[in-house]
Amino acid sequence: MKKISLLGATGSIGIQTLSVIEAHPDEFELVSMSFGRNIKSGIEIIRKFNPRFVAVQDKETYEKLKLELEIDKIKIGYGQEALIEAAIFDDVDCLVNAVVGSVGLVPTLKAIENKITIAIANKETLVTAGHLVTEYARKHEVDLLPVDSEHSAIFQCLQGEKSKNIKRLIITASGGSFRDKTREELTNVTVEQALNHPNWSMGAKITIDSATMMNKGLEVIEAHWLFNIPYQKIDVLLHKESIIHSLVEFHDRSVIAQLGTPDMRVPIQYALTYPDRLPLENAKRLELWEHGKLHFEKINFNRYKCLQYAFDSGKIGGTMPTVLNAANEEAVEAFLKGKIKFLQIEDLIERAMDKHKSIAHPDLEQIQEVDQLTRNFVQTLIS
Amino acid sequence: MKKISLLGATGSIGIQTLSVIEAHPDEFELVSMSFGRNIKSGIEIIRKFNPRFVAVQDKETYEKLKLELEIDKIKIGYGQEALIEAAIFDDVDCLVNAVVGSVGLVPTLKAIENKITIAIANKETLVTAGHLVTEYARKHEVDLLPVDSEHSAIFQCLQGEKSKNIKRLIITASGGSFRDKTREELTNVTVEQALNHPNWSMGAKITIDSATMMNKGLEVIEAHWLFNIPYQKIDVLLHKESIIHSLVEFHDRSVIAQLGTPDMRVPIQYALTYPDRLPLENAKRLELWEHGKLHFEKINFNRYKCLQYAFDSGKIGGTMPTVLNAANEEAVEAFLKGKIKFLQIEDLIERAMDKHKSIAHPDLEQIQEVDQLTRNFVQTLIS
Repeated sequence: MKKISLLGATGSIGIQTLSVIEAHPDEFELVSMSFGRNIKSGIEIIRKFNPRFVAVQDKETYEKLKLELEIDKIKIGYGQEALIEAAIFDDVDCLVNAVVGSVGLVPTLKAIENKITIAIANKETLVTAGHLVTEYARKHEVDLLPVDSEHSAIFQCLQGEKSKNIKRLIITASGGSFRDKTREELTNVTVEQALNHPNWSMGAKITIDSATMMNKGLEVIEAHWLFNIPYQKIDVLLHKESIIHSLVEFHDRSVIAQLGTPDMRVPIQYALTYPDRLPLENAKRLELWEHGKLHFEKINFNRYKCLQYAFDSGKIGGTMPTVLNAANEEAVEAFLKGKIKFLQIEDLIERAMDKHKSIAHPDLEQIQEVDQLTRNFVQTLIS
Repeated sequence: MKKISLLGATGSIGIQTLSVIEAHPDEFELVSMSFGRNIKSGIEIIRKFNPRFVAVQDKETYEKLKLELEIDKIKIGYGQEALIEAAIFDDVDCLVNAVVGSVGLVPTLKAIENKITIAIANKETLVTAGHLVTEYARKHEVDLLPVDSEHSAIFQCLQGEKSKNIKRLIITASGGSFRDKTREELTNVTVEQALNHPNWSMGAKITIDSATMMNKGLEVIEAHWLFNIPYQKIDVLLHKESIIHSLVEFHDRSVIAQLGTPDMRVPIQYALTYPDRLPLENAKRLELWEHGKLHFEKINFNRYKCLQYAFDSGKIGGTMPTVLNAANEEAVEAFLKGKIKFLQIEDLIERAMDKHKSIAHPDLEQIQEVDQLTRNFVQTLIS
């Protein structure tokens, strides 16, 4: 029985993680969890899975939750301290970190200190502090298992292979909801249009990041850290069907790929069962002849500026990816609230990166400071 | 330094194996080799690679070779005994069995007895005597490494995975030189048309086998033995570009595939370097965007009867695959010599299978007897 802590239980990845746990009651147990403010959904999950500890985002949600639950049976808390407590609660074996944003960083580090395996869906943790997290994981000999479909694909392709033989990682990109639009056509796109992703049903933030291709940019940085591969050896390939989830080219020119119908339960379950695999009932079998054709296209970095910025920030290193990520989070939130236009997202990121002088090998405090300063800077530009 | 014996040195796989050996002079040494009657090509190879032992097909070729070589430096022989001697010569580490036809069987068994790793390109060995060869390999704890691009693909996909988790092997098929023709259009196709394979440059026998899809059928049987997978779990998928060389579906619905530009040196080298990989210079990198599209189609077993016969013979088991293979070898030779028409190949195989009552768990002698009887039977039908 693997004891699981799930941060971000009411989000898209959280819910699918719960469906994997539910499908294998003899394998997995939900010991602790967190959610933000979605109390209705949170309570449903708590009643169904009976975790021993629940962390919520703020005091208001905490007070509401207290009224709903018999708190003699379950411990609850709120804020950053509670999030950390959920991450390392009792005898947790595996932390599924599915929160959105850089709030996932500290709980991850604490869990690593506690020798808890990390299944990481919170890409901002690796983007803003990849050097700290991976160094920590190596030091404490803790596995960092990817949950993102692309990174899980690469991770699966690398099983039984040696890192020294990798020539190139090829991360596929669907192109997002606006893949058939020119830059001119992007000028006046609406939030509703942006949220209509062709292949995957995901949260709002990540769907916008797909439309700007920042999601792929964050994945490039994440791949750099997860697989310890220089940016020069990471490529992005447009593949609109999202059937090939990513590929690895080895130095003998052999290419290994992982494929499947779009179903996040596959990479989530793989992270939970690694290095084994369990059956996944009710998942749709991939039949390539049903698709008939798969399409591939070279990426155009002028069309997808956010992807270019991500590569740039990664190559500069230090605190620059923190700036990229913080500026993006603020800009996307402003776009979702209707405060800025779609193409302003990339403008704001560019301006934040231009203004910043990267600090090499930043510690946690420096990262958090740069993160905050960037958010403030972007806010002043928006308002 | 890995010491290699190469059977079938002047054939297509043989020549490409030699180019892999030549590219890595510090890794591989050609210790012994065999060829049939192509003395010109054989002598060139001998002069370049200086093997210590050479086996040729018959006494005539042997006598001619003796006149050409300084035989104090090199030992030569002919016939089946010499083929076995080449396979197990001195301190051979790895036997690359690239002969065509069932003549490759006994040398393979002898090499296994001598604890020599087998890189197997001679599919007839596994088709006619898969149960003997795999049982032998298990008993003597010898690796059977595939050289065929499809089986190498599956083998690469299975690295780091557990057999129990396999749901299905999916072997891709280009469809051969006649993939766009209807059965009616196949009635009067010529030998020249059949030899014009769209993707791979191979020997005559295997190119005809591609056109009839018998090649894929033999691969299905080979895959059954190599990977110990029931026929119900093996599928064939039409994929005309031959870029995805094969795929494995696991029971969590994750699919792993191996891809590459068509270059037999990749699987050959992988068998020689397994479980490591070496760089392969001058090999073309796969860029999927250069292809733009990959196509997939469901197989039609009525269109490709030989493939159906192969599945049938495999499921019946015993000596039936021996009949399939022997009838096919005789029929293809007759077609290449202009004695029969293209569609008669499948007729002859069907008639041979219909006539045969399969013997379960045959020993080597029974296999050889059935092989010979089948050849005689097909010959009487042809003449």
